[in-house]
Amino acid sequence: MNHISGGVCAAQGYKAAGTHCGLKKKKPDLALIYSITPAVAAATYTTNVVKAAPLHVTKRHLADGMLQAVVVNSGNANACAPDGEENARAMCASAAKALGLSTEQVAVSSTGVIGVSLTPKMELIQAGITALAGQLADTAQAADTAAYAIMTTDLTKKEVAAQITLGGEPVRIGGMAKGSGMIHPNMGTMLGFLTTDAAISSEMLEQALQQAVNRTFNRISVDGDTSTNDFCLILANGLAENPVITTENADYETFVDALTALCTHLARLIAADGEGATHLITCTVQKASDEDSATAIAKSVISSSLVKSAVFGQVANWGRILCAAGYSGVLFDPNTVTISFASQGGEILVCKDGQGVSFNEEHALEVLAPFEVEIHIDLAQGTAAATCWGCDLTYEYVKINGEYRT
Amino acid sequence: MNHISGGVCAAQGYKAAGTHCGLKKKKPDLALIYSITPAVAAATYTTNVVKAAPLHVTKRHLADGMLQAVVVNSGNANACAPDGEENARAMCASAAKALGLSTEQVAVSSTGVIGVSLTPKMELIQAGITALAGQLADTAQAADTAAYAIMTTDLTKKEVAAQITLGGEPVRIGGMAKGSGMIHPNMGTMLGFLTTDAAISSEMLEQALQQAVNRTFNRISVDGDTSTNDFCLILANGLAENPVITTENADYETFVDALTALCTHLARLIAADGEGATHLITCTVQKASDEDSATAIAKSVISSSLVKSAVFGQVANWGRILCAAGYSGVLFDPNTVTISFASQGGEILVCKDGQGVSFNEEHALEVLAPFEVEIHIDLAQGTAAATCWGCDLTYEYVKINGEYRT
Repeated sequence: MNHISGGVCAAQGYKAAGTHCGLKKKKPDLALIYSITPAVAAATYTTNVVKAAPLHVTKRHLADGMLQAVVVNSGNANACAPDGEENARAMCASAAKALGLSTEQVAVSSTGVIGVSLTPKMELIQAGITALAGQLADTAQAADTAAYAIMTTDLTKKEVAAQITLGGEPVRIGGMAKGSGMIHPNMGTMLGFLTTDAAISSEMLEQALQQAVNRTFNRISVDGDTSTNDFCLILANGLAENPVITTENADYETFVDALTALCTHLARLIAADGEGATHLITCTVQKASDEDSATAIAKSVISSSLVKSAVFGQVANWGRILCAAGYSGVLFDPNTVTISFASQGGEILVCKDGQGVSFNEEHALEVLAPFEVEIHIDLAQGTAAATCWGCDLTYEYVKINGEYRT
Repeated sequence: MNHISGGVCAAQGYKAAGTHCGLKKKKPDLALIYSITPAVAAATYTTNVVKAAPLHVTKRHLADGMLQAVVVNSGNANACAPDGEENARAMCASAAKALGLSTEQVAVSSTGVIGVSLTPKMELIQAGITALAGQLADTAQAADTAAYAIMTTDLTKKEVAAQITLGGEPVRIGGMAKGSGMIHPNMGTMLGFLTTDAAISSEMLEQALQQAVNRTFNRISVDGDTSTNDFCLILANGLAENPVITTENADYETFVDALTALCTHLARLIAADGEGATHLITCTVQKASDEDSATAIAKSVISSSLVKSAVFGQVANWGRILCAAGYSGVLFDPNTVTISFASQGGEILVCKDGQGVSFNEEHALEVLAPFEVEIHIDLAQGTAAATCWGCDLTYEYVKINGEYRT
């Protein structure tokens, strides 16, 4: 797998654009992705009982497994807001009209403040969509404008793309994501959009996306809050002309591995850009009895406010790590657990066989200083492993969320 | 039920004392509670897989349902620490020797930093226990010294007591608790100690404690972290000479109601004293399909970092409340939900039928300014209700936990 540039425009036949339509004061707030041919599509949605209107509309439009365009706005989540479904559907209709498609070929997604109606802004949005249809381009720059337009409290745009070979044909997968707060995805994710020119059946695309999302976006947490708008979508337009993937063959494995790698990249970018974050925390649990157990423990650790505060303070407080593992819901023997920290600053063992080992506090400070800090937990109880990603809890997180309306 | 003073010494036949033995630099760190006659006892323990050594020892000593003394230290959790069980048992043995009891008549409990061995401090602790045995008194002042000695990052001591009438006899129940961080009890609680002179069977005492704890300590959260040391204990020495409670009769109901009221008082004190807290958050869910659903939703709301940050910032962000309700794991229809804030500053409706209603921002600020802020959620879907208590997320929480070793 080779990493390439181009984001959602990296694969053949995809165009994108982003612009400012007026939902935010100045920053870009509207994006459009378009496939020049109908594409097989699959999506995952938030598990939150309270689902935003665009998710309901998109789910209906995806009933036949095909899409050709996606319109996304930031600055307003269109969740728990009057006329939510009508406005979401009107956004699809506007895009369809501008692109010569049917409304059902368009997906819609929103992110921003909950509970505010889009109605007063619908004219601005519809004018923006029309303008975007005229600006669509298949360049890396065009992909960038779309990636910028879906950001809320994000500080960095989040894009990725790679090329693989399936049945002798070069196949490309690209993607973009957003997410910084209200991040604790379970099933879907904040917003993630992936495009590929691979030829693959609807069923296998859905399975591949679910597999990739479960091991990537569903393994990050910023603040434990699962959003009403989490959404991850993939389009596959088949223009690479590889032998169509219809079973779990070697090409499928290659595709899933690449998709997982790209989603890992985007998921790490989201955790690293967590609201107020000064550290990316990577927790790997090894030698667990099964992957679900390893995942539950790693997620419990990276979600713990006390662990997050400790990493912020650069305190090698392994007791909080073992404590968080202990309330993860997984049964394990604490007496065989080994815990160490690692980073570019070195590695340090802090707990062996469930008990503290003496360590050099100055060396611990060196290990905890770099931006990315790894926590390694060895249960010595099996062969399974899993990694989850989070960020530290900082004054800035409290400041952002004491002020920003999401 | 009449509130009285006296804490754990309020009921007949109980003595207490607290002192500084050397686990902390200056503050009190060792407490002793003693019943002049053997007492029926019941306890709840943390659900964390990683359990501190004192819990294991206490559980064994409670096997016969009887205890006569409790020794508690702060400054060291004796969890995941070398020689944990030996040291916990040695603390019981010291207390037993000083009080003329058998080791099995003594419970032990610890709170503080995880992973540090008590061994280097055992001589100090044992000398402290001997000194405490000589200082035991049945006064409110003595109860105060014990309540101070179990504090860690707590800013306030937490005591309560009340008198009720059972079978014509005055019966007293008193208690003390500690807890400020690593608070998300599930089953037990931070540390809670209750004493009563009620005559009650071991089985009914255990049932009463479980009922009370489930509706009080298990409904608070400071940071979502369930400690390794959570523990709640009640002693009942029968000196009130009321007709022994052996069934769920009217006296049992009176007793459980009083116990629940006292535990509610202590639980609220813990939430209000949450690390760095500037607001006590009370979330009441009404008209839910059942009490478990109401509890799960209320707990999800008071545990949400985004809701907690919003209350800190005094932002009436009801979208985050509905979002947190939505990922609580409870199925409900968002379209019938009503949300309002209330406090000494007034009441304000912010969401009706699952959608935002316009409200006066200045009035909202007045409602969110007082220390205690209530969140009312009406599901309009049944008749059950539940209340949970939490606190806001502040810069100070991050500061405390970026520095303090728990």
